[in-house]
This record gives sequence, C-alpha cells and structure tokens, in this order.
Amino acid sequence: MQEIRTPGMQHVVLSQKSLADYAPIAGESVIADIERLARPLQGARVLHISSTAYGGGVAEMLHTLIPLMRSAGLDAEWAIINGNDDFFTATKSMHNALQGMDLELTNAMRAAYLHANVDTAVYFEGEYDFIIVHDPQPAPLRTLRRSDGGKWIWRCHIDLTAANQVYWSFLRPFIEAYDAAIFTMPQYVKNDLHVRKLAFVPPAIDPLSPKNAPMDDERAAEIVRMYGVDPTRPLLVQVSRFDPWKDPLGVIDVYRSVRAEFPGAQLALIGSMAHDDPEGMEYYQRTKEYADEDPDIHLLSNLDGVGNVEVNAFQQAASVVMQKSLREGFGLTIAEGLWKGKPVIGGNVGGIPLQIEDGVTGFLVESVEEASAAALEIMRDPERAHRMGEIGREVVREKFLSTSNLRNYLRLFTELMEQEASESKSRMAKPVAW
Amino acid sequence: MQEIRTPGMQHVVLSQKSLADYAPIAGESVIADIERLARPLQGARVLHISSTAYGGGVAEMLHTLIPLMRSAGLDAEWAIINGNDDFFTATKSMHNALQGMDLELTNAMRAAYLHANVDTAVYFEGEYDFIIVHDPQPAPLRTLRRSDGGKWIWRCHIDLTAANQVYWSFLRPFIEAYDAAIFTMPQYVKNDLHVRKLAFVPPAIDPLSPKNAPMDDERAAEIVRMYGVDPTRPLLVQVSRFDPWKDPLGVIDVYRSVRAEFPGAQLALIGSMAHDDPEGMEYYQRTKEYADEDPDIHLLSNLDGVGNVEVNAFQQAASVVMQKSLREGFGLTIAEGLWKGKPVIGGNVGGIPLQIEDGVTGFLVESVEEASAAALEIMRDPERAHRMGEIGREVVREKFLSTSNLRNYLRLFTELMEQEASESKSRMAKPVAW
Repeated sequence: MQEIRTPGMQHVVLSQKSLADYAPIAGESVIADIERLARPLQGARVLHISSTAYGGGVAEMLHTLIPLMRSAGLDAEWAIINGNDDFFTATKSMHNALQGMDLELTNAMRAAYLHANVDTAVYFEGEYDFIIVHDPQPAPLRTLRRSDGGKWIWRCHIDLTAANQVYWSFLRPFIEAYDAAIFTMPQYVKNDLHVRKLAFVPPAIDPLSPKNAPMDDERAAEIVRMYGVDPTRPLLVQVSRFDPWKDPLGVIDVYRSVRAEFPGAQLALIGSMAHDDPEGMEYYQRTKEYADEDPDIHLLSNLDGVGNVEVNAFQQAASVVMQKSLREGFGLTIAEGLWKGKPVIGGNVGGIPLQIEDGVTGFLVESVEEASAAALEIMRDPERAHRMGEIGREVVREKFLSTSNLRNYLRLFTELMEQEASESKSRMAKPVAW
Repeated sequence: MQEIRTPGMQHVVLSQKSLADYAPIAGESVIADIERLARPLQGARVLHISSTAYGGGVAEMLHTLIPLMRSAGLDAEWAIINGNDDFFTATKSMHNALQGMDLELTNAMRAAYLHANVDTAVYFEGEYDFIIVHDPQPAPLRTLRRSDGGKWIWRCHIDLTAANQVYWSFLRPFIEAYDAAIFTMPQYVKNDLHVRKLAFVPPAIDPLSPKNAPMDDERAAEIVRMYGVDPTRPLLVQVSRFDPWKDPLGVIDVYRSVRAEFPGAQLALIGSMAHDDPEGMEYYQRTKEYADEDPDIHLLSNLDGVGNVEVNAFQQAASVVMQKSLREGFGLTIAEGLWKGKPVIGGNVGGIPLQIEDGVTGFLVESVEEASAAALEIMRDPERAHRMGEIGREVVREKFLSTSNLRNYLRLFTELMEQEASESKSRMAKPVAW
C-alpha cells in the first residue's frame, strides 16, 4: 500500500515535562548547569527533524529531550519528514549499508532519497536558531536550504565505522555542509569526514518514563509472575530485538550453562518485533525452536502486548541483566539495567564498554564461556552484585540520563554561539582589503 | 519486501497452562463441566488453523484456548498458514469487504487467495479428529482436502451481516463444505448460508493473562501515575484502535461534557497501532489534534510501549470504562472492563449488547449526549457504580472467560460426535436397497 503523505513536514505534538520533576532524581547540580547554560538561550528557536515520531530509541529520546528543552526555556519543536515507500526503502538500505552491510545503491534509490528531501526542503517553513537533523534520512536538507540562517547540526545515532563506501561517498558531502555533527563517540566517526565542529553525546534514558521509573521489588515480582516467571528463583534477562547480532541463542547457551550450578535459574528474552519485518519474525521462531519448549525460557515481545512497565519489571526482577551483543550501536538497555541497580553483562562491542566498567558495574564478555562465568560470579555473590548495581546506577545518573543529554545539547549550542561571536568579531577586526 | 515463506504450515509453540489454575477464579462448576465433557474426548487430535500467531484478538484467544484444551486431555495443535504478500493483500481486502466495505474483487485476488490455500492444502500433514479453521483466510482448505476424515469446523470471528455480496458469493461455497460453523452470535450469520450445523460461541478473555490478572488499586494507581495520570481524580478510559468506528473523537466530546461537572476528570485513550497502517497513524494524528494539547487527555499506544500491564492498570484505575463504538465485532474490551469491576458505557452495536445489560452493568448509548449522561450517572454515585461493576464481573465470570470458551468447544465436539454416531447407526439400520 502506498502511503499518502502531504508535502512538507508534520510537527509532533509533545507531552509536557518539567525539569523540576527531574531534580530529585538527576541531582540538583545538573539542573543548575542546565539553568545556567539555558539563560542566554531563552526563547531560542530549535527545530529537531527526524524520520519517525514512534518506535525505536531515537524517537523515544526525542519525546523526552524536546519537552525538557521547552522546560529549560527554549522554543523547541519536532518535525517529521515526509517520504513515500521508495524513499523509506532506500533509507532502510542506507541505514543497513552505513552499518556495514554490502548493499547496492542504485540511481533509482539515490533519486527516491533526494526527491523526498527536495519536497521537504521546498515546503520547509519557519526560521530557527538551531536545526538538528537526526540520522541520514533527512541529511540533505542542509544542502538544499543553503541560504537559510541558523546553526545546522547533524545528529548521527549510528556507528559509521564500517560504513559501506559507496553509500558513505554519496552521503558525506551532505554532512559536510553542516555547522556541526554529533556522534555517540569518537570511534563512530569516519576519518574522512570533515565537518566544522564535532561533538560527542551518548544516548540517554528518561528516569521518569514508565520503562525506568522507580518500581519496588514487590511490584516487579507481581508483574513477572503474571508472565509465568517465579520471582523467588534466579532470573537472567535480555531485552533486545530477535536478531543474530543480539545473540539470543548465545544467551540461551549462557542460561543452560548457568543451570548446572543454579538449576532453578530462568531466562527471559524480551524483544520488540514488527509484523512487516519477516527477518525478525523468522529469527524469533528460530530462537523459540532453540529454546526447545523449556518452560523456564520465556520469550516475550510487544506482539504479546509486553510494554514499558513489563520491561521495567523484568529488569527490576532480574538477578543478571544481559546484553550479549556481537555488534551494537550503543545498547541503551545496558543503561536501563544499570539504572535498576543490576550488574550488566555486555558484549565488548560498540557503545557497550562506554557503559560497563568491567568487574566494577558488570562484565564485558567476548564468548558464551565468558558470559557464563560472569553470570555465575554475579549469582554466587548477591551482596557483591548489589554493590556493583549501586555503582552502576550512579554512573547512569552521572552520564546517561535525559538531563545530561539536554546539558550536552545546550553546551553545543553555547559553543556554536560563542564561535559565531568570535568569528564575527575577527571578521570585523580584519582590515578591509580592497 | 517480499516475504519468504516455505510451503505448508508452521506449528505454533505454545506455553503451558493448567485448568487447575483457573478453578479458583472461573468457579469449580465450569471446571467440572469441562472435565465431564472432556472424558470421552481424551487424546482427540485437534488442529486449529489460522493466519497469524500474533497480534489481534483471535491469536490472543487461541494462545489460551489451545493450552487449556491440552490441559483438558485433548491433543491440540495450532498451525499458521503460509501466504505471500499478494495473499495477505487479498485477504485484508476480503476481511474489510466481508464487514461491509465496498471493494473490488479482482481475478488476480481470487487467484492469490486460492494459490496460497492450494499450497497449504497440498503440504498439509497429519490426521485429526477436529480441524477448526479460523476466519476467511484459510477457509478453502476444507474444499481442497475433501477426502480427509475428521470433523471440519469453520470459526468465523467477524460479523457477516453487511458482507459485500461479491466477496460473500465467492466465499460461501467454501464455508458450506464444513461440518459446522461457529459464529459469535446468530445475528452475524448471513441468511443464505447453509451449513450442516451452526454453533454460537462468544469470544472470551483469559482471567490469568497480564491484561486481566488481579491487580490491586494501589498497583494500578502507581502505573497510571507513570503515564502522567492522577489516580486521585476521575478517569475515563477507552482501549481501542484509533479508527473512526471506535469514535475516539466522540469520546473526547464525552470527556469535555463531563468536565463541566467534574473539572478534574481525565481521559485515557489507549490503542494499538501498526507502522504499516497509515490510516491508523493518520486517525491517531487526527485524534491528537482534536485533543488540542489538553494535558488531561492521554493518548497512548503500543508505539509508546504501552502493553498488557498498562491496559490492565488503566482499566483498573478507571472511574468509567468506555467503548463508544459506532460499529463493533464483539468488543472484548467491554468484558475486560466489566472483569475489572467497572461499569462500562458501550455503543449499542454489534456484540456490545451481548455484554452490557443497560442500566445494570453499564449503559448502552447511541450518541455523545447519551454517553455523557451515562458517564455522569456513574461518576455521581460511586457506590452504585461499584455495585454495577460487581454484577458485571459475575456476568463475565459466567459467560466470557476462556474456560467458558473451552466448554463451548467441547460441547460442539461432543454434539458432532453424537451426530455422527446416530447417523452411522441410522445408516446401518436402513434396509439395503439393492
């Protein structure tokens, strides 16, 4: 079915959030920083542009970040670009290719990509001080609106390290037209990228969202019990898509190996799936077959109606939170697990080492054997596990909450303004040459 | 993207459920009935065939019904038919046309529909005593496997009253090949349908599923608070797709009219949406615009990660549960609401009057005005509301729990076996004619 979209962008209606509500949980000092940074930015017109308002980590973060920008006194908006099926097919391929898949880039795909961006650019309305363009889908907008004022920032949420060269060569000039680019971490930047300013901002979790809001152990126990889990027995939890890179089969191996010592151990694999994603459905089936009707392995997904509160409860009820990825952008479920005060076992890839300090807040692993040993270490010593979890929670409080995310954006805005001020001063100071 | 499917059907891996767990909540008498009916059916081979294992009310019911059949001693299985995109496009159109939409039925659609059924029929394996085919997608299987033994039952979950004549004429002969057909209620049967046996079975809810399991008020309050709802103020709740037939805009009108007397009233509209359903997304946007950024109107969906536990909590926390449909198949959210001990206001359409006794367990309404008056009546007299809710819960216990659903199937199996026994006896008794 062809989607019917009007030209131009659709603005997302946002809920209200108040920074004051975050002060008790994020700490007064970050709120004070935000207030200080926001003072010269009062009323600044900020537009975030992305390709979807729902589903996925980016949309989830923006649903918190933008209301918090408003609460800090900025005039922040969020708009969604339009595109037809061909556009989304092309950008899906681009997304995969930029993460290393070997895919073709046809001229028809280039055209579909640019046509949709042209339509968005032509019907673009409003004047902004800061325009943040998220991910590759709307990236050409800056090039297509060269004459606009304001600072243009490209926010890249993916790891470009292994980007397919053909796709990257096509995309790079569009990125280089920006005033600044934000990456999750320095390693994610392609080294041939030249952009005026680079900033590094990790993703963040919202400590007041239903997925992360405080939930006591008794509540969590009650909810996991509804799904057939016995909260009095040990529980391993991985929250992840059913996808080879998240290695759910490896997690089942870890669980099986742990069962030798803890025969009562249980495993919950919680993922989100889309009906229109046959690969995800197939890998889910494959995982289900690998679980071999073991009644202590619980495969759950949004298609069973598993939502935020369930994810919160399962993480809260876990003995060990796992994210045994073989490849990972960032892995926000790690911050979620740490925030619940749980030691987290993560694959030593992508953004995971940024979140887990090996042996301190969890373990970084490179095999089923290492993961099993780590899980046993945690399960044998609940007191140590508790101490690790407490440290982990403080790390998240410091670095990975939405309030830190907001502070990072405000810092970048400030730097861009200062840079402009000093440049315009130096331009004025220069002797006129003719 | 073309889905890759192998020929033949895929069997669904089911979780285990035990009838014994249902006895305290469903009542001993229904369990005793089930045991009595199941005795002659021990080991009976039962196959349910449907088009999807996830998403939607039918899949949800089968995930409970089939494990309970097993617990009752039957050898019950569930298989999912295969089909390519063209098949699912054709059956989606068929689904809509059978509910009254004016759609074309092309020969290409007929072909796609039958080709997929041929593949399923040809690769069909196993022998069964009872084969229950759910809904129109796999309906031709009986015709294509004419030589098979066993009793074939077609279970229709939709209302055929206003079925498009062209689609119905195409489908009817396939249905008439069955030994029996189950409809939700007599009104849903097309009067030109001739099938050997008709049975009427309402849908059912699982009282132990996360959506309906007992949750105390304090837990419910905690969860709705996470979504910004104040549990100390009155709350109207409608759980429904964002779709004109569910009239979410009318529900907003009811809320606004109720606010004149109860200025603290809040509204939660909770729906499920699919990314690949642009109409649903558009109607969600339209509802959001109609809500006009009122902070006391909460639009929530699976895309925000709202799942079973949230639905349970919102229904539990509601002052009034609404299902203001203008058209409705059955409306299981009504049984869900009644099961939470809430009076329910429902549109006087489809299967709703089967569930709500007007003025006793809720109100049947035909306009915004009637719905507003009903809501006020409930909100003004919490004690009466409580009594209505208690009666509603008993009605659900009696008629709309999974255990009643199982009992209804066992009754039909029994009748089909008795019918066969008496027919074969009368055949034997007949004098041989040649």
